[in-house]
Amino acid sequence: MYYRFVRFIIVLMVFVFLPSTIFAQSPDSTKLRQYQDVLQRMMNVGLESCSAHQLLSELCTTIGPRLSGSPNAEKAVQWAKKKMEDLGFDRVWLEPVKVPHWVRGSVEEASIVGTSSKKNIPLKICALGGSIGTSGTTAEVVEVKSFEELRAMGDKAKGKIIFFNRPMERGRFTTFEAYGRAVNQRAQGAIEAARVGGTAAVVRSMTTRLDDVPHTGMMNYNDSIPKVPSAAVSTIGANLLSELLKKEPNLKLQIKLSCEMLPDVESANVVGEIVGSEKPNEVIVVGGHFDSWDKGQGAHDDGAGSMQSVEVVRLMKELGLKPKRTIRAVLFMNEENGARGGQAYAAKDRPGEIHIAAIESDAGGFTPRGFGVTADSEVFSKISNWSPVFDPIDAGKITRGGGGVDIGPLREHSVIIIGLRVDGQRYFDYHHSDNDTIDKVNDRELELGSIAMAMLSYILSEEDISPAVSHGPTH
Amino acid sequence: MYYRFVRFIIVLMVFVFLPSTIFAQSPDSTKLRQYQDVLQRMMNVGLESCSAHQLLSELCTTIGPRLSGSPNAEKAVQWAKKKMEDLGFDRVWLEPVKVPHWVRGSVEEASIVGTSSKKNIPLKICALGGSIGTSGTTAEVVEVKSFEELRAMGDKAKGKIIFFNRPMERGRFTTFEAYGRAVNQRAQGAIEAARVGGTAAVVRSMTTRLDDVPHTGMMNYNDSIPKVPSAAVSTIGANLLSELLKKEPNLKLQIKLSCEMLPDVESANVVGEIVGSEKPNEVIVVGGHFDSWDKGQGAHDDGAGSMQSVEVVRLMKELGLKPKRTIRAVLFMNEENGARGGQAYAAKDRPGEIHIAAIESDAGGFTPRGFGVTADSEVFSKISNWSPVFDPIDAGKITRGGGGVDIGPLREHSVIIIGLRVDGQRYFDYHHSDNDTIDKVNDRELELGSIAMAMLSYILSEEDISPAVSHGPTH
Repeated sequence: MYYRFVRFIIVLMVFVFLPSTIFAQSPDSTKLRQYQDVLQRMMNVGLESCSAHQLLSELCTTIGPRLSGSPNAEKAVQWAKKKMEDLGFDRVWLEPVKVPHWVRGSVEEASIVGTSSKKNIPLKICALGGSIGTSGTTAEVVEVKSFEELRAMGDKAKGKIIFFNRPMERGRFTTFEAYGRAVNQRAQGAIEAARVGGTAAVVRSMTTRLDDVPHTGMMNYNDSIPKVPSAAVSTIGANLLSELLKKEPNLKLQIKLSCEMLPDVESANVVGEIVGSEKPNEVIVVGGHFDSWDKGQGAHDDGAGSMQSVEVVRLMKELGLKPKRTIRAVLFMNEENGARGGQAYAAKDRPGEIHIAAIESDAGGFTPRGFGVTADSEVFSKISNWSPVFDPIDAGKITRGGGGVDIGPLREHSVIIIGLRVDGQRYFDYHHSDNDTIDKVNDRELELGSIAMAMLSYILSEEDISPAVSHGPTH
Repeated sequence: MYYRFVRFIIVLMVFVFLPSTIFAQSPDSTKLRQYQDVLQRMMNVGLESCSAHQLLSELCTTIGPRLSGSPNAEKAVQWAKKKMEDLGFDRVWLEPVKVPHWVRGSVEEASIVGTSSKKNIPLKICALGGSIGTSGTTAEVVEVKSFEELRAMGDKAKGKIIFFNRPMERGRFTTFEAYGRAVNQRAQGAIEAARVGGTAAVVRSMTTRLDDVPHTGMMNYNDSIPKVPSAAVSTIGANLLSELLKKEPNLKLQIKLSCEMLPDVESANVVGEIVGSEKPNEVIVVGGHFDSWDKGQGAHDDGAGSMQSVEVVRLMKELGLKPKRTIRAVLFMNEENGARGGQAYAAKDRPGEIHIAAIESDAGGFTPRGFGVTADSEVFSKISNWSPVFDPIDAGKITRGGGGVDIGPLREHSVIIIGLRVDGQRYFDYHHSDNDTIDKVNDRELELGSIAMAMLSYILSEEDISPAVSHGPTH
């Protein structure tokens, strides 16, 4: 009886625990320790020097913002290439990309006029990226919270300046969600304004903060609809305008913008790598976008992700790691107003090369929390199983979905797409505005992002993790 | 056979799963949803207004730093009492505490003198809290990294100024750990300096940052050893001094400090609460310390925790929650240089009252990660089981151990002691220095801490969670 009982227990233990074992695929504990040792070394070396922040400081203070097509963007490309060479990367090169060239010009002004006080009240505005200019548009204002509200107005909006004033919802924990639920006003406002016969679109800045700094960003036109100028107003300005409109619905807004679109310009993605010791033709991309808006210094967006990517390769070099696969830092050009760098990277013919995975950091240089992974279930499960490696830096939250605008096009080539997840509470205080400067980036938080990316790219280079259909941009 | 097999399976399933069930004690799913609804409402209301930040702004800008015994601390006590009353707390009162009264005075200067350049080189220093003053101490300098190194020097340190220059280890993820491993230099440096016949102690500032701002903090004397003056030097100053000492070991340091200890002063803890709807005599304390150092504005340390505690009760009121137990905000006086407020709170006779738990926030107003809980295993396990409630704000990491200086004395009365855990990467950039000002506190990060504390105190008020021996400071 005792023997049979024991045999039953053994059989049942296997039976009971096997499925959870399969499901969990717990990683080999020796390997786990080895990876945690690597992480420890990355932390010691990385946090001690915080080199990502040193790179970013130099970029922000000696070059500054880097709008696609601008002289600054060109300077930055040359600077980054030289920096990667100086850091001893195995290979460094530029990949040409033709980019849009929109310029803000020197004039962006708005005033509330025609109130009973007879005084002109200036508002802080900035042109949205891609907008046409105007030497002067003056009209009454219609305030709306949604496109539905605007369309329901019929002719009442004709000839007016359309003021889109639906705030980002501060009550949400995930600021990106709040952004996603408000940003159509900025992206499509000019189209919707023109559709009802409006003369311009003025959009409440996309920020969770109440301040007097306008936040720019991309806006679109539709070829079948007239183009009208489009600008962002600071949240303080938006509140003031809204309050005044309640009392004086016939006030007028006067807008001047000197922005314009120029012909496309040659630019480049900057690429540098550590060549894989065993599978040099299998590539893990770590990247951020190198262009920024022309406000502030493009520190968090996305100087941070770019310099973190450089730091990933630098850390490998400094620690003497020899990843089996190639780990390649890509600084993508033109994410903000065209995404052409990411498209060009994915479209380029790369004979003999296979892309395994791409990790992008484009949510600001804040404390990392984990990764969002876009891959099939088996790959997702394999990656999730390495989550405990990241426990010592509290960055082991691995969730489904995620990536980045620049690496997105690689998904069509079945590459594993991964986005660094960070603490996003402060991001929209700075995003696309004069607030986005190096003093807002904490050296340790930024470095921890590099360390998380370095660790994951190292695991991806060592482990038997590959996309279901293993091919990169080239075949 | 089949019947016996099934019976065996059932018995074994119970056998196999029971221990894990006991261990996990998964919370009732209906309740979990109810709590998550409450959290959602707290987020909507809290993040929308970010009232904790409004309170903290007012405190920092209209009053400023609040060193124990100072006129500012007295002003702050009156301000907070009125604020709680204005916010409609059920009961508000002051509890008197006698506190030390140390003053910095207007002079704190240091210069490197007697170098071959003949030029005096000023260093940024500040007196450490509790130090005696000096109208002028000039002596050669001995640099050490540890007390062991100092003691091994024998007579060589006699008559010298002892320069403690062991940096906080930047390579650690947990900045509090790095602080803990360096801070004995600040706390005990003057004692150790005097023990070897040194004339003063100069300590490298406790910060992970390289800048020119000295960071103050508590230091101790030992009655059986002579008192020598003790000051912190900025990290830039410390590096400069260290470099110069290598070249010119006979340089001298000149220090002037006008600080002094005055007689004790009457002050108070500020207390306000929402009275429990079913068990008004059972109390959950939420607290921070209201005093600060006299540098900066005491924004993160610990205006943040104090105002978060007020916000916990305010949120309950605004949401119309009726917690079963009393939730009491306590703004403790004198954490920084005496901890007398916490001791007085715990020692006070409170007939008929039982303290269940106390939660302290004293690690800065940063994004919350979870809680550290000091309690017996059963209570710890019960609290951990509510961790999923905090998932929507990524603050569900509940670990063993933790609390706070002010609530620590309650542990002797078997009260459950809980510390709010936050993202600590930036804390020591600001800590105890002129950098600790309101502009360094993000409104959303601060509010999320209030929300986490409000949620946990609400759960503690509703659930059957009590200390093993259930009694408060009073019996």
